[in-house]
Amino acid sequence: MSELAFDPYSRGCPSRRLLNQIGELWTVLVVGALADGALRFKEIGERVDGVSYRMLTQTLRTLERDGLVTRTQYAEIPPRVEYELTETGRELIVPLRELEIWATSHMADILAARKHFDEAAGQ
Amino acid sequence: MSELAFDPYSRGCPSRRLLNQIGELWTVLVVGALADGALRFKEIGERVDGVSYRMLTQTLRTLERDGLVTRTQYAEIPPRVEYELTETGRELIVPLRELEIWATSHMADILAARKHFDEAAGQ
Repeated sequence: MSELAFDPYSRGCPSRRLLNQIGELWTVLVVGALADGALRFKEIGERVDGVSYRMLTQTLRTLERDGLVTRTQYAEIPPRVEYELTETGRELIVPLRELEIWATSHMADILAARKHFDEAAGQ
Repeated sequence: MSELAFDPYSRGCPSRRLLNQIGELWTVLVVGALADGALRFKEIGERVDGVSYRMLTQTLRTLERDGLVTRTQYAEIPPRVEYELTETGRELIVPLRELEIWATSHMADILAARKHFDEAAGQ
């Protein structure tokens, strides 16, 4: 199947759902947390402050199912499980990092714009 | 306030909610639709196949409130209203377009990965 067959602007195209999934907050932050290399579940949870056990489990499982993260269980005692981005997953690092930079660098302007908008709407 | 004060990895930071909002599917597609210039409401709705009147209204209003889109009403008969990305909004075009390209170019691989994962899970 050609890549041209997929178009997120068309309803029903699976790439629309994929795009939705990739833009989800926990996905963005988990991919960012894994950008520097493999981590254990607990370490990811520490970097992504406030993510619940359930959300992190679900996010990692979706990433694993999509082939964006590998889950490796080492035969050690106690058992060690690590998560790592695949090559396809690593390709998300740059655009998602750019979104993070955009969000943090414009946050003050956006808070000011909201205040202005709400004041104008309240008049 | 310094931009360094914002960190989406910290719970409660407004940049986390902003990042969540920017990653929403309709936001991604509406920003992409406006990448080439100003459009009317109806034209945006035509490009973003399947978006409801309600979702498009809400998405544009959020973008306008955040200062990412301007809404200009022209004193014509019949009245003409156009939406256009601001400079801050335009800075989202490149990273969001990269996500779209990523999603469409890897869609076939990801569908294959899901099939493989589900088959392994079903065994």
